[in-house]
Amino acid sequence: MKKTVLGIIGGGNVGRIHAKDIVTSVPEAKLRYVADAYPDAYNEWAKANGCPEAVTDYKTILNDPEVDAVLICAPASLHGQLIQECARAGKHVFCEKPIDYSIEAIKEAIRTAKACKIKLQLGYNRRFDHNHATARRMVAEGKIGEVRQIKITSRDPLPPPPEYFAAVGGSAGGMFLDTSIHDFDMARFMACGAEVTEVYATGSAMINKDQETTGGVDTTSVILKFDSGAMAIIDNCWQCAYGYDQRIEVFGSTGAVNVANDTASTVVLANEEGQTAEKPLFFYVNRYIASYTDEIHEFIDAIVNDKPVPVNAKDGYYSVLIAKACDISLKEKRVVTMAEMLAL
Amino acid sequence: MKKTVLGIIGGGNVGRIHAKDIVTSVPEAKLRYVADAYPDAYNEWAKANGCPEAVTDYKTILNDPEVDAVLICAPASLHGQLIQECARAGKHVFCEKPIDYSIEAIKEAIRTAKACKIKLQLGYNRRFDHNHATARRMVAEGKIGEVRQIKITSRDPLPPPPEYFAAVGGSAGGMFLDTSIHDFDMARFMACGAEVTEVYATGSAMINKDQETTGGVDTTSVILKFDSGAMAIIDNCWQCAYGYDQRIEVFGSTGAVNVANDTASTVVLANEEGQTAEKPLFFYVNRYIASYTDEIHEFIDAIVNDKPVPVNAKDGYYSVLIAKACDISLKEKRVVTMAEMLAL
Amino acid sequence: MKKTVLGIIGGGNVGRIHAKDIVTSVPEAKLRYVADAYPDAYNEWAKANGCPEAVTDYKTILNDPEVDAVLICAPASLHGQLIQECARAGKHVFCEKPIDYSIEAIKEAIRTAKACKIKLQLGYNRRFDHNHATARRMVAEGKIGEVRQIKITSRDPLPPPPEYFAAVGGSAGGMFLDTSIHDFDMARFMACGAEVTEVYATGSAMINKDQETTGGVDTTSVILKFDSGAMAIIDNCWQCAYGYDQRIEVFGSTGAVNVANDTASTVVLANEEGQTAEKPLFFYVNRYIASYTDEIHEFIDAIVNDKPVPVNAKDGYYSVLIAKACDISLKEKRVVTMAEMLAL
Amino acid sequence: MKKTVLGIIGGGNVGRIHAKDIVTSVPEAKLRYVADAYPDAYNEWAKANGCPEAVTDYKTILNDPEVDAVLICAPASLHGQLIQECARAGKHVFCEKPIDYSIEAIKEAIRTAKACKIKLQLGYNRRFDHNHATARRMVAEGKIGEVRQIKITSRDPLPPPPEYFAAVGGSAGGMFLDTSIHDFDMARFMACGAEVTEVYATGSAMINKDQETTGGVDTTSVILKFDSGAMAIIDNCWQCAYGYDQRIEVFGSTGAVNVANDTASTVVLANEEGQTAEKPLFFYVNRYIASYTDEIHEFIDAIVNDKPVPVNAKDGYYSVLIAKACDISLKEKRVVTMAEMLAL
Repeated sequence: MKKTVLGIIGGGNVGRIHAKDIVTSVPEAKLRYVADAYPDAYNEWAKANGCPEAVTDYKTILNDPEVDAVLICAPASLHGQLIQECARAGKHVFCEKPIDYSIEAIKEAIRTAKACKIKLQLGYNRRFDHNHATARRMVAEGKIGEVRQIKITSRDPLPPPPEYFAAVGGSAGGMFLDTSIHDFDMARFMACGAEVTEVYATGSAMINKDQETTGGVDTTSVILKFDSGAMAIIDNCWQCAYGYDQRIEVFGSTGAVNVANDTASTVVLANEEGQTAEKPLFFYVNRYIASYTDEIHEFIDAIVNDKPVPVNAKDGYYSVLIAKACDISLKEKRVVTMAEMLAL
Repeated sequence: MKKTVLGIIGGGNVGRIHAKDIVTSVPEAKLRYVADAYPDAYNEWAKANGCPEAVTDYKTILNDPEVDAVLICAPASLHGQLIQECARAGKHVFCEKPIDYSIEAIKEAIRTAKACKIKLQLGYNRRFDHNHATARRMVAEGKIGEVRQIKITSRDPLPPPPEYFAAVGGSAGGMFLDTSIHDFDMARFMACGAEVTEVYATGSAMINKDQETTGGVDTTSVILKFDSGAMAIIDNCWQCAYGYDQRIEVFGSTGAVNVANDTASTVVLANEEGQTAEKPLFFYVNRYIASYTDEIHEFIDAIVNDKPVPVNAKDGYYSVLIAKACDISLKEKRVVTMAEMLAL
Repeated sequence: MKKTVLGIIGGGNVGRIHAKDIVTSVPEAKLRYVADAYPDAYNEWAKANGCPEAVTDYKTILNDPEVDAVLICAPASLHGQLIQECARAGKHVFCEKPIDYSIEAIKEAIRTAKACKIKLQLGYNRRFDHNHATARRMVAEGKIGEVRQIKITSRDPLPPPPEYFAAVGGSAGGMFLDTSIHDFDMARFMACGAEVTEVYATGSAMINKDQETTGGVDTTSVILKFDSGAMAIIDNCWQCAYGYDQRIEVFGSTGAVNVANDTASTVVLANEEGQTAEKPLFFYVNRYIASYTDEIHEFIDAIVNDKPVPVNAKDGYYSVLIAKACDISLKEKRVVTMAEMLAL
Repeated sequence: MKKTVLGIIGGGNVGRIHAKDIVTSVPEAKLRYVADAYPDAYNEWAKANGCPEAVTDYKTILNDPEVDAVLICAPASLHGQLIQECARAGKHVFCEKPIDYSIEAIKEAIRTAKACKIKLQLGYNRRFDHNHATARRMVAEGKIGEVRQIKITSRDPLPPPPEYFAAVGGSAGGMFLDTSIHDFDMARFMACGAEVTEVYATGSAMINKDQETTGGVDTTSVILKFDSGAMAIIDNCWQCAYGYDQRIEVFGSTGAVNVANDTASTVVLANEEGQTAEKPLFFYVNRYIASYTDEIHEFIDAIVNDKPVPVNAKDGYYSVLIAKACDISLKEKRVVTMAEMLAL
């Protein structure tokens, strides 16, 4: 069986996750390149982890006719541009979220990908999580009847570093576009075909209260309304004392499914203090690590067997629109419609 | 020890719960009267349950100088008026929720109660539930640090009867003023002193889709923002396939408390289908029955020992304001401020 | 409806539990007497709890022709004798466990009760516990197929007082006859008709290691084999750091039922230490209080409607035989058969 | 870093598990050989799984001076003999359980291994399970004080195939020596240094009742008593309707730890039937797969850094003695002492 040949653009955190996964757990693919403009740190890591050394120019990947597909793990502001270049080079694309910050760039990237007939899959890995995927399958099978409310809790164990706080100062975008965007995609995933029509978001700076004066929030509450009448309720916080809290509930006309957190063990200690179970797994590399592998298996499968990708360009576009609607809602203290957003 | 002498106005569902509770479980009180204008049904029940027969005129209660306090269990539209009459007769008052539908009536009732120096306690019994009270105590003790998000799920097993649906047709008030109002009070209770500043509500008619055309909703999502920056997120539905779903989560800077549902037993059946625990207790008379007793114990204690009541007039007033704010928010699709409501 | 008139012999702990229960929660019965030879302590308690004052001679009860039934809550060594006296006086008997320490006394008591055609119910209240009764009903309904293994964990929060330890010094009987006997009855209850054929018991003095030299144990492990091939495995300890641990598992050919502990609330606190639920309810008056009421309801029902009692003389006899078999097994380090015991 | 060179003797189920694990997840080792006398089935599997083809003569492995260590995955009756051959060839040995069926063979194997100064590790992989290892660490750290009772439930989802039943017909050895032996080792592991002194075992043929006539049992209950006074209680069954049930509880003077089953997801479905969680993971290849890797990592570490192996020859010997004591106890219906067994 011929292996699918891959290149990765961007040797940072998520690039490394994909590189190592492909090398150890995706035997149907061959990772030929990782591109990184400043490769020293990456190369040190790569040597210890059995991954290819970096090329400094990502065009090396585009120019190699044997490369079948590219994983874009570069900064989000470059995503749209890189998708276009890959598409024009005839490479299938797996792009990390968000698809881009600029709506114009997103639209162009999608148009080009379509024109060039490449596969374009977005990196919403949580759809492939063993818990969330099981819940979604049960919803899709009708186990809970018609979906009424989707509730998503997503709390990070630690806030981003201070420099990140500074970067998002004056813009609430950090929270919605970088973090909650996963939950917006998850809400659409669990809605099984219903589409968002209205968005309301509010939030506070509860961790670093100085942020609020500049509009930066770290604790948010969002309601999405769907064309089916269903609603999604999403709560996020960038700091959680007990770890990475990732729970989902989908409530329907004949039942509900609940996804609880994963823990490192099932051990419970009973003593004078009570009955104590472990905290949730610490962060995304612990909780969601298997999902990074599974999304790549499905990407390869879509390429090799010419199937639709499981997370497509529209999913990438809509999750950004919802995040941007939240920014507007938070700032203007009002409900924002998806019709407005689609007209941008 | 002299027993506190009580009368109940209203021999319907909640009047009977209180009557039986006082007779069997509140030895420090003596139930002398139950007043009901059409007493036949009540009297039949009373005989089987060891409760006093009904008087038809509630003024009999007000005119008896030995009566210390009155429980108002009449229709909500009469609450304000009855509070005033009781106050003028020098009777302490325990009033079921809502304190009244009319803001003017509420204000007058509160003024009169204050002028007459009576105790006025509101019937938010869920504050006394063994689970919710435990969670609140932990929050108040600082076990979770500063409160960030309060999440309340409250789903009824069965929708109100069709005639009730009809009654609220054209008004969304049914949901927020009759049902969610318990959750609004609970949110304020868990906020431990922070006060609501902004309200957003949305909803759908998911059970009976015809309702939506008249503005009637049966499935709702609400976000309350507090002056502390904290938020409460409340989801309600009038129909839940697995019973009466009553859960609360309070998330703070150093931890979180979660209240799960009560079940009739802890038995889990493991078989080829999975590992199945019981459904939540069916409805409020099952889940919250002990809280009805506990709120009366505390009411008597407040009277006998001249302490502040645990649920006061302001609690009654604010929960109605929040419910009415939700009505406006739903209808006008906008954020409603408590400043607006207080100015009404 | 005529109330069933009751008397209680013995105003100690369990006598008081029954007295208060009957007064507050068994409206179909009238408690006319409590007999206690040294009534001062009891009377003080009785006044505060609305229970009848004590008579000093229990024969007062037997001589009152209006008394329908007697609850025997006296020391176990008197049980057999008292059952006989009650039976001869034509009183139905509810007798606390054990039915007696002496096998001869037990046999005579049973013969007399039968000859006098009285109802004789034994106080194995745990059969009426909401959890255990639910599990038993599921087993009886065939929900788990044929019973294979019954596992019972029963740990007390605190050991009996030192004087009790001293009393049982030199005799292992304390553990098996006073404590495990509840579990032996529960094993037979869950076996749904199968009967014990072989007994093996071992144990250690783990709390007070000096006991072991005199044969006194406080931590025990027992296996009962049934004529169906099923086995019961029972572990007991007189001291448990996290409270009163009362769990049961019944494993069958098509599934299993598990009874977990009850807790005072469902609240879970998540923080840096983990996710902590409450400890089990502290002791039998907390965990099993409702079962004391339920067993009396059924006793009255058996009398009034001439039904078989739910826990009969054979249940009382066999549980003592198993306990005594455990004593022998522990001392002689061997398997003891029920055939041996029945031949005593 | 030089990789440790390995060979495997036996290309059956467990041999394949180790082969694949080493190839994919043990980068510090190099699997050079797998030996199987009838290699066709193995080779077909090996090709699909990226593992080395089989050699037919295991002596090829012993004769290769570059081989550092051998994993013995051959039938148990050959284990002792193979350990000796490996030891004499200077190869370290990882041997699957049981170390042998013959006590004489075990003793000789241990003597030879010692004389040849090789590392000899036994394949009690469950010690490395994420749940059990966490519980053990907490016990060893003193989190529950002094160990009083160890309770192990181990139920297989499906009985062994009929031909296996036939093979063990007339011998109870199948159950104790092949299955419960893991639990005997686990009990010793959790006892943290205490040693077994007395053994009692009973059992029934509950799945295939014909077995019982020949002494074959499929459902067993065992009590081990330790020199510390602690007891282990082990229940096993070869057929469990809800999957592979693997739970452990260790109860001590200041608390207890409980290991629950792993499930494929945390999803709970609530509907009219109740609240249903997933069944336990199906069988050992699902539940314990990671532990096979971890035990090999530690084996390599012991070799490379000349450390004691984590599961040693004594562990292998004692678990067999306990299993054989159970055979005797079952057959002779008596307590068997370890002193007897050690004297064999």
